[in-house]
Amino acid sequence: MRKVLKEGERLDELNIKNMAIIQHKDKFRFGIDAVLLANFVTAKRGDRIVDLGCGNGIIPILIAAKTKDTFIYGVEIQEEMVDMAIRSVAINSLENRIKIIHGDVREVEKLLGYEKFDVVTSNPPYMPLYTGFEKKEEAENIARYEVYGGLEDFVKAAFKLLKFGGKFFMVHRPDRLVDVMYFLRKYNLEPKKLRFVHPYVDSKPNLLLLEAKKGAQPSLTVLPPLYVYERTGEYTEEVKSIYSKESLEEE
Amino acid sequence: MRKVLKEGERLDELNIKNMAIIQHKDKFRFGIDAVLLANFVTAKRGDRIVDLGCGNGIIPILIAAKTKDTFIYGVEIQEEMVDMAIRSVAINSLENRIKIIHGDVREVEKLLGYEKFDVVTSNPPYMPLYTGFEKKEEAENIARYEVYGGLEDFVKAAFKLLKFGGKFFMVHRPDRLVDVMYFLRKYNLEPKKLRFVHPYVDSKPNLLLLEAKKGAQPSLTVLPPLYVYERTGEYTEEVKSIYSKESLEEE
Repeated sequence: MRKVLKEGERLDELNIKNMAIIQHKDKFRFGIDAVLLANFVTAKRGDRIVDLGCGNGIIPILIAAKTKDTFIYGVEIQEEMVDMAIRSVAINSLENRIKIIHGDVREVEKLLGYEKFDVVTSNPPYMPLYTGFEKKEEAENIARYEVYGGLEDFVKAAFKLLKFGGKFFMVHRPDRLVDVMYFLRKYNLEPKKLRFVHPYVDSKPNLLLLEAKKGAQPSLTVLPPLYVYERTGEYTEEVKSIYSKESLEEE
Repeated sequence: MRKVLKEGERLDELNIKNMAIIQHKDKFRFGIDAVLLANFVTAKRGDRIVDLGCGNGIIPILIAAKTKDTFIYGVEIQEEMVDMAIRSVAINSLENRIKIIHGDVREVEKLLGYEKFDVVTSNPPYMPLYTGFEKKEEAENIARYEVYGGLEDFVKAAFKLLKFGGKFFMVHRPDRLVDVMYFLRKYNLEPKKLRFVHPYVDSKPNLLLLEAKKGAQPSLTVLPPLYVYERTGEYTEEVKSIYSKESLEEE
């Protein structure tokens, strides 16, 4: 195992089917948003899936672990993250289920064609790129800021990839909700389910989970809130069950 | 008092500054949505306010009761509701604070001009008008269904009435959230605050309260949820305090 890891990297266990993931101590590491998104996804047997901006591959690996007979492409622009993701796929023996591709979300159709996928997922950069932003080449910033493609580019990519009736699952920040809704409708991906994630029962949400469907009629279901912590600071029962769940809901 | 009431009408107390409102037993009567909206509104002394689709006048009366030195126009298309609202304004001696106007939201600029108001409020009909809808002349249906103007017409009316920087406060149903967001941005009324109202802590929201600001930059604050009932079925402390609050927040 030691040979697989490069300097500064470590192997983190995922608590699901003995899966693990390579992460770098100084680079963007996955958080609860990736775990909640992977759990929010619904997929059928045989579905073809793309994860846009897959980083170290956490979402493709979690979805592969929790679904059967799906095939998942992960698209990532940062070469060093692609390299880590490919090694993580190999460590988990998922080469027959996941393919990591080095590429730009803004030109995703050149890599994967039009309207060939059932499901698209994304945990995109949350922060708009502001003028004067200087450190844009750093991996941490590329994962957090809209350096290579903003929200509209990710939504447009999902629109290109999805078949009619296909589903787009996304995690984002509540302060971007209007942008999310506006761009999804602009690209004919009608929001169908929205769930807010609140740290505590009385706090503002700090994440949102959204399911949109290509070509669907308007009518949104806002789901009950997902609370992360009890007042004691312990995870809620729901979050505990998400971290230990071994399979996604099937449709 | 008896002479003020027509057949089928009753006088309901509002539990605030001895105010009361005339309601008809068979027509649309106000609910918790109107009370929550009136409480969600912020207004400064001297603000000029319009309530679009004011029905029996509940929102203008509540806002007048809870603010100082504001003037509120209520616009309503149903003549019999206008008649009830005018009598309710008189009963509460609010003629110098509220003017009820019989008119169509879709032509509101003919009544009130362009960009002369600081605040616009609306509790519009929630339901899209579907084909085959037969009973559209009934007052109950006009209040509930988009017979005389849909969501886009109400948003467009608010856009016409508001000064740059003016605020639009609205209550609607969560299933229409995408429409709400989409139309607000289309008419340059950027959503700034959103609060969902949940019957219980673990249930889906059944109402949303939204504040938009004309010409503002994007960035939405999703507030902590408003829960209506305790598990015991009793109102929560927050809802009790809203029903008994005597003044709105000032900016």
